[in-house]
Amino acid sequence: MSVKAKALYTFLSENNGEISIQENEELIIFDENSVDGWFQGENSRGERGIFPASYVEIIRSRSNSNVTDCSISPAGSLGKDFSTPNTSLHYPQNDYDDDDYDDWDDWDDRSTVVDDADHTRNPGANGHAPENPMTNNPNVHYRPKPASRQDSITSSRKGSMVGRNLNRFSSFVRSGVEAFVLGDVPMMAKIAETYSIDMGPLGPRWKENPKPFSCSIEDPTKQTKFKGIKTYISYRVTPSHTGRPVYRRYKHFDWLYNRLLHKFTVISVPHLPEKQATGRFEEDFIEKRKRRLILWMNHMTSHPVLSQYEGFEHFLMCADDKQWKLGKRRAEKDEMVGAHFMLTLQIPKEHQDLQDVEERVDNFKAFARKMDDSVMQLTHVASELVRKHLGGFRKEFQRLGNAFQSISHAFTLDPPYRSDGLNNAISHTGRTYENIGEMFAEQPKYDLFHMLDKLSLYQGLLANFPDIIHLQKGAFAKVKESQRMSDEGKMDQEEADGIRKRCRTVGFALQAEMSHFHQQREVDFKDMMQAYLREQIAFYQRVVQQLERTLRMYDCL
Amino acid sequence: MSVKAKALYTFLSENNGEISIQENEELIIFDENSVDGWFQGENSRGERGIFPASYVEIIRSRSNSNVTDCSISPAGSLGKDFSTPNTSLHYPQNDYDDDDYDDWDDWDDRSTVVDDADHTRNPGANGHAPENPMTNNPNVHYRPKPASRQDSITSSRKGSMVGRNLNRFSSFVRSGVEAFVLGDVPMMAKIAETYSIDMGPLGPRWKENPKPFSCSIEDPTKQTKFKGIKTYISYRVTPSHTGRPVYRRYKHFDWLYNRLLHKFTVISVPHLPEKQATGRFEEDFIEKRKRRLILWMNHMTSHPVLSQYEGFEHFLMCADDKQWKLGKRRAEKDEMVGAHFMLTLQIPKEHQDLQDVEERVDNFKAFARKMDDSVMQLTHVASELVRKHLGGFRKEFQRLGNAFQSISHAFTLDPPYRSDGLNNAISHTGRTYENIGEMFAEQPKYDLFHMLDKLSLYQGLLANFPDIIHLQKGAFAKVKESQRMSDEGKMDQEEADGIRKRCRTVGFALQAEMSHFHQQREVDFKDMMQAYLREQIAFYQRVVQQLERTLRMYDCL
Repeated sequence: MSVKAKALYTFLSENNGEISIQENEELIIFDENSVDGWFQGENSRGERGIFPASYVEIIRSRSNSNVTDCSISPAGSLGKDFSTPNTSLHYPQNDYDDDDYDDWDDWDDRSTVVDDADHTRNPGANGHAPENPMTNNPNVHYRPKPASRQDSITSSRKGSMVGRNLNRFSSFVRSGVEAFVLGDVPMMAKIAETYSIDMGPLGPRWKENPKPFSCSIEDPTKQTKFKGIKTYISYRVTPSHTGRPVYRRYKHFDWLYNRLLHKFTVISVPHLPEKQATGRFEEDFIEKRKRRLILWMNHMTSHPVLSQYEGFEHFLMCADDKQWKLGKRRAEKDEMVGAHFMLTLQIPKEHQDLQDVEERVDNFKAFARKMDDSVMQLTHVASELVRKHLGGFRKEFQRLGNAFQSISHAFTLDPPYRSDGLNNAISHTGRTYENIGEMFAEQPKYDLFHMLDKLSLYQGLLANFPDIIHLQKGAFAKVKESQRMSDEGKMDQEEADGIRKRCRTVGFALQAEMSHFHQQREVDFKDMMQAYLREQIAFYQRVVQQLERTLRMYDCL
Repeated sequence: MSVKAKALYTFLSENNGEISIQENEELIIFDENSVDGWFQGENSRGERGIFPASYVEIIRSRSNSNVTDCSISPAGSLGKDFSTPNTSLHYPQNDYDDDDYDDWDDWDDRSTVVDDADHTRNPGANGHAPENPMTNNPNVHYRPKPASRQDSITSSRKGSMVGRNLNRFSSFVRSGVEAFVLGDVPMMAKIAETYSIDMGPLGPRWKENPKPFSCSIEDPTKQTKFKGIKTYISYRVTPSHTGRPVYRRYKHFDWLYNRLLHKFTVISVPHLPEKQATGRFEEDFIEKRKRRLILWMNHMTSHPVLSQYEGFEHFLMCADDKQWKLGKRRAEKDEMVGAHFMLTLQIPKEHQDLQDVEERVDNFKAFARKMDDSVMQLTHVASELVRKHLGGFRKEFQRLGNAFQSISHAFTLDPPYRSDGLNNAISHTGRTYENIGEMFAEQPKYDLFHMLDKLSLYQGLLANFPDIIHLQKGAFAKVKESQRMSDEGKMDQEEADGIRKRCRTVGFALQAEMSHFHQQREVDFKDMMQAYLREQIAFYQRVVQQLERTLRMYDCL
């Protein structure tokens, strides 16, 4: 039975069979049971096709709603939050209708709406269809768990007088960075892993992985199990430092991805490519997902921290089923996640003025916001260009080709004046332009698709930064508060110094991550632009060659 | 005051400010006084702009009509016409609503609707806005004059028993070819001019002009008279055999064109390019008209008969005002026009079976009909392509350019990580694609416009052939009729032989004209295709060069 729905986010179709939907657009869904995370339906322009289930919300009449409402009253009325004049909670409801929900504009009073750190930080807003089974089932609405709240100031565990944030869903709180900064996380006796930050010429940076490696992803192969009832795609994953391939499914990637999100506070973990499309477009889709998994993997291996993660090593090397399960359980029991992960960071001794750090972060914020916009713009333009290549451009050249062929045919009709040479040349010109039309339609495979892949990776990376920057903002606010309290004699200077010290760690980590982002961005965008231009040149050269060959047919007439 | 109108013919806009109209489309005209042959108005798609006045018919309520109706009853009921089972007269009326008026389909029961041989044979149907002042004034409707009719058989002047056509507006009658074939035109004692037809390897052909020449048209210059109240464009016209320029206005070309139509029965005289557009698009228009006048002139000088015409010589050489008027009057008094022109033809002695001639003509007819379709198709495709070049293509590339620039701008926002080299390269890539967008928009000037010019010439040439072929059909019917009458003893064999002999002249002339058409077509289409391909190659090479230069900016990073 078809039901009405509303688009929560804008989704731009990139494959045949998908349709684009606009934020707030009314949709019709043909069957409310999604298939592999996709709905089939119709948008308001009457286009039919599939779109990610997690991008839409089914509209039910209020009386029908049987989802318990875990009401969380706006925190702003209960007490003053650490840094923002107005703190409001954003979370989806049945009648959620926030007109202009923008990650970057809501920056300072940001509250993430996910209920679990295992899930992507910004579901949907970055072009990512999260694989969360809850969101894929439209009957289960995506809302924060009713969490136990601590009222500020009065409830400090260690007796610290610095207030805890009212909004327990803010990334600052969820990530554990608040707890870390306030010293709620006890230093552990034995920390097996450490990640170092050193000072580079442009500021703090992650210390390189001493054993750098790369990793190929190849040969997506359809596998079946349960006598063919279930099918899945298996990828051959070969890390360069072992040279031994392992075979992984998307769900393994997804497991790894969720481990990363859970553990690596302050690090931007790019989302995985979409999971699966159905039906006859499968091949293109598998190809696209492979390309995007490769880019995701490149980001993983090039990241000094992520590439050294034990769970990642396990993912890359374990070829034994039993060992796999053991390693999986071990990774899931890892205690050094979230707040505790911060304990594993070793920062340089150099003094950095916190004010300077904040300025650095503000610059990065302005940059990242603009880059996010530009990447979105280029994505949009490139998607449109793909559509034009497949549609308008191909059609125009093919029409021209047809018209030439038609002229050539007319010229054969009066036999004494056939002039076969000329007719053949014109007919060949017709075929040439038909070919050129086909070349236009093929070309995105060689250039625009790769550009879109990389832009999608960057959309994912950039979408994480509002939350990450929020961590530093939160930590800095705690420093200011503790200093004030210390000045007023309400707090030991020693405790205030501890908060300041731990805030430095957050600042260093964030700067290291920003630095890594910039470094990768330079490499990636240089590569992307060069590759695009090279393919464009090759394309137009092929057009020239075709035309030159055709022109020569007229020379001998 | 705006009035309703209906499009009589399809018109495809080719210049800014023009709008396309579809045959039978309802239109609104803002002011029923046309300006230089153009109406301003709105089509049914809400587009506003100008279109040729002669392509539309103003819709008036019947009671308003104050135009006297010169009723001509269908001839079919009065007597049998020479060759067609159903003879119906087509002529425009206020409520003229012929759904599918096609020159080629109405071939055999063709009746031309012009009221004067001075005017184009097929107004409008060929993309030509006729310069007839009557059609430009929408208050004067375009209809046949009430002509005196002669009933068949009974009214023969010389006592010949072969019937004269009832339809006095058919090209066969109007052109004088009927009179010529039936021997109504007395041989004149002194014929100053002769045009010879000889037998070439592929059949009869015009004997070449013994003094071939070419003629340039350059430097359209705006001139004023009456103290600037009237402006006109003057062209420098320089024939190669004199090398002396003369200056001619469009009205001089138009005078020459009308002389040609008047005189040269059986020759396809291409129409002149449109006369004038108004306002800010004038420059493009003047340029286009110049290009098309050049093609028209090339056809004139390459035609063995037209190029030898005394009136043409006068047009090309006379530089003196007084002489001009004298020569003009002389040309207008030329008696060897229409039927008499046929007397100036000298045909070879070779016997040609009339049946074979008819078959040749039928082949040519099929060819010309298909070529007409193909030329129309290519014109349409090329016009669309121009639109795409100026619109879609330019826009897509410029958007891509903008998006790159925007990325480059974002990258400057976090100063320590500016990487100026990369940003400059990306920004330059943006400008390159903006340039490429402009190059696409400019390109039609170098290729498609020239193609459209030539196609327009050929549309004009082809549009004349139905009428010309009709001449031969009419003449052949007279031969058959006279032979039958001779067999039945109703006519002297001598008279029947005279009709057959004169019909041979018509057949030879038509075949010579067909042959000339084919010969020119081969040259023109070869040139057209080569020029198009050359410009296309140069264009894509320029694109490649731009991209290569841009790519090199990344190499040194």
